Amino acid sequence: MPKADVRKILDQFRVSPEGKFDLSRHDPAWAGDQRIAKAERKLFAEEVLGQDVKALTDAQIRLWASDSWSILIILQAMDATGKDSLIKHVMSGVNPQGCKVTSFKHPSEKELDHNFLWRYSLALPERGQIGIFNRSYYEEVLVVRVHPALVKAQRIPDADPSKKRFWRDRFDDINAYEQHLDRNGMKIVKIFLNLSKEEQRKRFLKRLNEPEKHWKFSAADLREREFWDDYRLAFQEMLSATSTKHAPWYVIPADHKWVSRALVSTLLVETIHSLDLEFPEVTPENKAAMDGARRALEAEGDREKEGLTTAEAETT
Amino acid sequence: MPKADVRKILDQFRVSPEGKFDLSRHDPAWAGDQRIAKAERKLFAEEVLGQDVKALTDAQIRLWASDSWSILIILQAMDATGKDSLIKHVMSGVNPQGCKVTSFKHPSEKELDHNFLWRYSLALPERGQIGIFNRSYYEEVLVVRVHPALVKAQRIPDADPSKKRFWRDRFDDINAYEQHLDRNGMKIVKIFLNLSKEEQRKRFLKRLNEPEKHWKFSAADLREREFWDDYRLAFQEMLSATSTKHAPWYVIPADHKWVSRALVSTLLVETIHSLDLEFPEVTPENKAAMDGARRALEAEGDREKEGLTTAEAETT
Repeated sequence: MPKADVRKILDQFRVSPEGKFDLSRHDPAWAGDQRIAKAERKLFAEEVLGQDVKALTDAQIRLWASDSWSILIILQAMDATGKDSLIKHVMSGVNPQGCKVTSFKHPSEKELDHNFLWRYSLALPERGQIGIFNRSYYEEVLVVRVHPALVKAQRIPDADPSKKRFWRDRFDDINAYEQHLDRNGMKIVKIFLNLSKEEQRKRFLKRLNEPEKHWKFSAADLREREFWDDYRLAFQEMLSATSTKHAPWYVIPADHKWVSRALVSTLLVETIHSLDLEFPEVTPENKAAMDGARRALEAEGDREKEGLTTAEAETT
Repeated sequence: MPKADVRKILDQFRVSPEGKFDLSRHDPAWAGDQRIAKAERKLFAEEVLGQDVKALTDAQIRLWASDSWSILIILQAMDATGKDSLIKHVMSGVNPQGCKVTSFKHPSEKELDHNFLWRYSLALPERGQIGIFNRSYYEEVLVVRVHPALVKAQRIPDADPSKKRFWRDRFDDINAYEQHLDRNGMKIVKIFLNLSKEEQRKRFLKRLNEPEKHWKFSAADLREREFWDDYRLAFQEMLSATSTKHAPWYVIPADHKWVSRALVSTLLVETIHSLDLEFPEVTPENKAAMDGARRALEAEGDREKEGLTTAEAETT
């Protein structure tokens, strides 16, 4: 299967900005063409990931050099979907100097005293950088929607989370915000890692049966699972309302980690390549400065060769 | 040469908090025991780096899990020393999620309106994280010392950079600040990459002769080279005055990149290991919660096996 096919596959996971979107039609267990042996598909996915990791190293240098666009990767998913390990694997070739990952904890009092996008905007990547939001302002229409009592803590005048209108306004705010970011040179890549409820159950159980992972356990991990159907509904509405031309959502099947990693890595490479980034042109002034610098450094070397120390040479 | 020897070697590059320090006695071209063939030493250094990169992956997980200490790596060096590529190589196994690299640009008006440590303190790593300062507040006693006019822009009342006392006060401020950070759980690793003037000349020339690196060229790169001797003096005084028991400086020979990478990677691994980090203990309450969660998840699976859907099971 050539690389071009991976691009085509990606298309089928993009949420169209127009038309009806139905989350239930996306299979979390999707793993390629079942007529091909699974071992073969897995090997191919691993090769794709390997190539993409290398391509990302180069793409990042270009992104950094051109110092115009930045990339914001937004990852949303239920617990145990493997967001952390996905970041580690896909970004393994990237220079940490140009890559900033942010996870958002419970908002502080100070953060709650601001508009709901405020604390996220403080963490946006700079030009030339890749920023990763491990969860994001989309939590404001996910966990906050599933637990509308959280809106109260935000003390917004006349906020009424029981009204459809309240959430519609939030979607509009987010779309306008992303339009603004895109216009100012931030390419936003939105990834929903689509995990099935049964696969989450298996992963939680696996984690509970590995003593070396017990320090990670928190009772809160499982509490949200009880709201699974509410979350599905919130995801369905969010994906439908906020997939736009400039910042579409991708619903990436996540029951198989080798599938999601290969798809996400290709999506990132494709996104950066689509920006047609160029290395900055060398201006005639800079060219002249470089020629002068080269001559000066070469002359310095010649003086050294003649047996003069730098100090002596400077006084001659 | 066993790994233990690398630790001993590191000791000789640590600036003792007591006694006289003489930078000129540190050879930037140091590359191990010359009685051993260079190819052999280089191979050994590469093996050390490879082992350390793996060890850092594990050490970072432990650092993250114990959520008590953080690591602050401070890198100082002249231009073309290879700080960026050192970060990329040494940190290649580290999860970007727990590692934050910050380079500091020219201070903004707002930053200049604060005490000189302020803007750096905003970028400190959180507990469990590794922070890397690619240049740091030490520039306040390096570039600022070499160009004392920069002090004027800071508008500090009665500041007189011509007085020794002014710099002595800055050293004291930095030492007290680092003492405070250390007491609050931040292990500071201070690395001066020691490059020779001749090696810098070669690297600048190499860069000028590689057209694909021309976009990187800035006339400012070479300007600071003219102040080489002033910088050496500033480094000598800084290293001497700010190498403390809780945050010693390491003068790492940097004329050979394979040498500096192996030494720095070992220093980092040793530093994290020295913290004796433990995974958090599982409390009896958490243990009980986990047992309950395991039973609930297993029962859910049994119901599924019996052919009931989750929705049906919930109503029974």
